[in-house]
Amino acid sequence: MTTKMAIGAKDIFRNQHRLIRFIEQSIRLCSNQSLKAAQQQQQQQQQLNKTQLDADFSISKSLNSEHWNAVPEPVEHDPDVGQQFYGNQLMVRLASPQQLQPKPDRDEDLIFGKQFTDHMLKIYYHKSLGGWQRPEITPLENLVMHPAAKVLHYAVELFEGMKAYRGVDGKIRIFRPNMNMNRMNLAAKRSGLPTFEGKEFIKCLSRLISIDSEWVPHTQAASLYIRPTLIGIDPTLGVASSDSALLYAILSPVGSYFKSDSTGAVSLLADPSYTRAWPGGVGNRKMGSNYAPTINVQKKADAKGLQQVLWLYGENHDLTEVEKELITPPLNGLILPGITRDSILALARQWGQFKVTEGTFNMPRVCELLNQGRLLELFGTGTACLVSPINRIHYMNQDLYIPTMEQEKPVHETIRTALTDIQYGKVAHPWAVVIE
Amino acid sequence: MTTKMAIGAKDIFRNQHRLIRFIEQSIRLCSNQSLKAAQQQQQQQQQLNKTQLDADFSISKSLNSEHWNAVPEPVEHDPDVGQQFYGNQLMVRLASPQQLQPKPDRDEDLIFGKQFTDHMLKIYYHKSLGGWQRPEITPLENLVMHPAAKVLHYAVELFEGMKAYRGVDGKIRIFRPNMNMNRMNLAAKRSGLPTFEGKEFIKCLSRLISIDSEWVPHTQAASLYIRPTLIGIDPTLGVASSDSALLYAILSPVGSYFKSDSTGAVSLLADPSYTRAWPGGVGNRKMGSNYAPTINVQKKADAKGLQQVLWLYGENHDLTEVEKELITPPLNGLILPGITRDSILALARQWGQFKVTEGTFNMPRVCELLNQGRLLELFGTGTACLVSPINRIHYMNQDLYIPTMEQEKPVHETIRTALTDIQYGKVAHPWAVVIE
Repeated sequence: MTTKMAIGAKDIFRNQHRLIRFIEQSIRLCSNQSLKAAQQQQQQQQQLNKTQLDADFSISKSLNSEHWNAVPEPVEHDPDVGQQFYGNQLMVRLASPQQLQPKPDRDEDLIFGKQFTDHMLKIYYHKSLGGWQRPEITPLENLVMHPAAKVLHYAVELFEGMKAYRGVDGKIRIFRPNMNMNRMNLAAKRSGLPTFEGKEFIKCLSRLISIDSEWVPHTQAASLYIRPTLIGIDPTLGVASSDSALLYAILSPVGSYFKSDSTGAVSLLADPSYTRAWPGGVGNRKMGSNYAPTINVQKKADAKGLQQVLWLYGENHDLTEVEKELITPPLNGLILPGITRDSILALARQWGQFKVTEGTFNMPRVCELLNQGRLLELFGTGTACLVSPINRIHYMNQDLYIPTMEQEKPVHETIRTALTDIQYGKVAHPWAVVIE
Repeated sequence: MTTKMAIGAKDIFRNQHRLIRFIEQSIRLCSNQSLKAAQQQQQQQQQLNKTQLDADFSISKSLNSEHWNAVPEPVEHDPDVGQQFYGNQLMVRLASPQQLQPKPDRDEDLIFGKQFTDHMLKIYYHKSLGGWQRPEITPLENLVMHPAAKVLHYAVELFEGMKAYRGVDGKIRIFRPNMNMNRMNLAAKRSGLPTFEGKEFIKCLSRLISIDSEWVPHTQAASLYIRPTLIGIDPTLGVASSDSALLYAILSPVGSYFKSDSTGAVSLLADPSYTRAWPGGVGNRKMGSNYAPTINVQKKADAKGLQQVLWLYGENHDLTEVEKELITPPLNGLILPGITRDSILALARQWGQFKVTEGTFNMPRVCELLNQGRLLELFGTGTACLVSPINRIHYMNQDLYIPTMEQEKPVHETIRTALTDIQYGKVAHPWAVVIE
C-alpha cells in the first residue's frame, strides 16, 4: 500500500498569550515500507501539477478574487438589534503628545500582549438609545463599568485575534478580515450580544491601524496583533441578553509566536482527564468562556516542562482518522473554524501535491503510526503562531517523539512560506488587504 | 414491590436572574399499585422516627454544631499566593448623605439584581505588592480597568450567590457561609486566581451587611441577595494565571425567586442538542464561563413559553436513576455542589421519612414513570429560588406534565418550610449565622 497519511488533532491549544489557539494539528504520515514508491508517485504527481503549481504563486492574477474571499454564513441581524454603526461616522480624539508611549526598541523582545499602542477603537451599543452608537477612536484608556456588568459575572464576552503586517513594499496589510468579522458575529449571536456590520468595523479598524501605523514592526519577525473584543456591560445580575455592550479594539506589537525549543518545535500535554469542548457546547466560538477553564491545565503542562496542551475528546481520545496525506479535524462544533486553518486547506487543495482531508483521528492511532514509523509531521496553526511544529506529546505517562523537525522538505515550512509571502506582500493575493 | 421513588435531574437551570442555578431536581415517585402499602409503611416509619423527628426542629440543641457546619475540602493555598487579608484590617469609607439611594417601596416588585445597596466591599490582590491588600468598604462605585484585563477576554471570573434574611426576631442571618467560601476558593484554584481565607472574607461581608442593614427587606417574601465576585484584572493578553485580581461584593434586595405560573410551578425546556457541562469540564464550579453559553438556549425556551432550561447530558439524556423516594443527581463533576441541595439532603436524612439517594436517572425513565403514574413531584433548588416546583417539561417535542402541584402534602413544601424556618430565625440552627 502506498498510502501517504496526515492527521490533525481535534484539539485546541489554550496558551493564548503566545498563540491564541491551535485548533488544527496536521500530521504528515508516510508508510516507511513504501516510502520510495510514495516519493516516486509524488514526483509524478508534482510533474502533473507543475502548471498548476506555477500558478499558485501568482494567485491573485489567476484566481477569481470572489472565490478567495468567499465568506461563509453571512450574519443575519436579529430584527430588534436596532441601528448599525458606519465607518464614515467615526470620531477621532487623538492622544496628546505627552500621552504618546515610547515604541519598543527591539521587536524580538516583545512579550505577547503586554504592550499596547497609543489609541483604541470603541463602539458602544445601547438598546435603549436605538442600537449601535457612533464609533470613536480615543487614546488608550481604562474602561469604566458597573460592578454588576454582565461581563464580570457571566462571561458575556468574545474576541478575535488578527494581525497587521508591514510588507516588503512598506505597505501594511491585514489578512482575510471578513472571516474574523463573520466568526465574531456568530459568537455574538451565541452570547446574546448585538451583531454588527463587519465591513464597517474593518473601516474603523483600518483607520486605527493607520493612526498607530508606526507601531507596526518594521521586520518580518514581528507584527501588530489586533484584539477586537465585544463585552456585555448591562449593570444587572440577570443571566440574559445584554442590552448594553461595548465593541472595542486594542493593538499590541508582538514578536514571533510562542516559546519553543532550539529546533523551533513545541511539546504537548495530552491528558484525557480534561476536556475543552463537547458537542452542544461553544468550542467553535471564540468566546471568553472557552479559555478560563484551561488555565489550570496549562499550569500542569508547565510543571511537566511541556509548552502546550493538546485537548482530547471522548472515550477514544479522538483526534481524527484518515488515509490521506494532509489531514485536519473537521468543523464538527468542537473546534474553532480557524482562518489560518482554512487558508492552509485552500492553498493545499490548490497545490494538489497531496490529498487534503478533514476527518477524525485518535491518540491510540497516533501511537500505532508512530511505532510503524509512518508519522512524519505534526503541526498546529493559528494567527499568533502561524504554523507551529510539534516534536513531543506527553500522553498516558509516555513521551511520544514526533519526527516533525527531521524531515528533509517539511510540509509545514512550505505552508509557512506560502502564508508569510502573502501576509508580508511578497506575492499579491486577495487575502491580504492593504491598509490605505 | 412497595418501591417509593424519587429522582433528581442532572441539570442546571441557567436563568440566574431569578434563580442562579437549579442543580438539583428531585422527583418523588410512588408506585400507584402499592400506594396504600407504601403509605402504611411510611406511617410505621414515621412512628419509629417520631423521637428523631421531634428533635429535628430543635436541631441546634440536639446536634453537634461541628457536624452541621462541617466544611468539605478545606482550601490549600498555593505556596506563592503571598499575604492574606484579615477582617480586622477593614477600612470603611461611607457614602455621603447625598450619595444614599432611596430604598425600594415595595419588596414584592423587586426585579432580581437590578437595584443595589449604597456600599460595596473591595479587596485587591497584587502579586507584585506581596499578595492580598487591605479590605475596603466604599460607596457603590464603578470599577476602572484596563481594556486588556483578563476578565474581559478569557472569562477569568467566578462568583457566589448568598442571601441575608431578616428573621422574625429582627436579627439578620446568613446561611452556611463557609460552604460558599469553600466553593469559591475551589473555583479560584481552577481559574488561576488567588485563594483567600473564607472566614476573613465573611467578617468583612458581615460588616458590609451591617452597614447596609436597612436594605435587608422587612418581610419573609424578600431578602438581600449577596454577590461575592472574584475577577482577574491583569492588563495582559496572555491566557494565564492573573497576578492581579479583585475580590468584591455587592448587595441587591430581591423579591421571591423567579416567574412561575399561578400555581407557583415552572415549566422546562429539555433539549438534548445543547449541553451545559461535561466530564473533564468545570460544570461543578461557579465560574462565569458556565453561564454565557446558556443565554441563547434560554432565549429559545422563552420563545416556546417555557421558563427554564433543563440541561441534559449524554446519549441517554441522563438525569439520575434509583429506586428510592428522594433522589438527586450525584456530585460527579457535572453539577454545582449546591448548598441548598446539601442542606435538603442533610435534613431529609435526619428526618428519615424517606430514603435519600444521590444517583443517576435519564429522561426516557422519567417518561416511563410518568406513564405509569409513579412520578409524584419534581423540584429544583437554589439560593435564589430556594425550592421551585416543576409542572411541565418540554422534551422531544412533547409536553410532559408533572403532578407536582397535585399532591396533598408535597415534600417540596415540607422542605421549603424547614429551610425558611431556619433562615428567618423561627428555629435556632447552627446553619443560620447571625450578623452582629
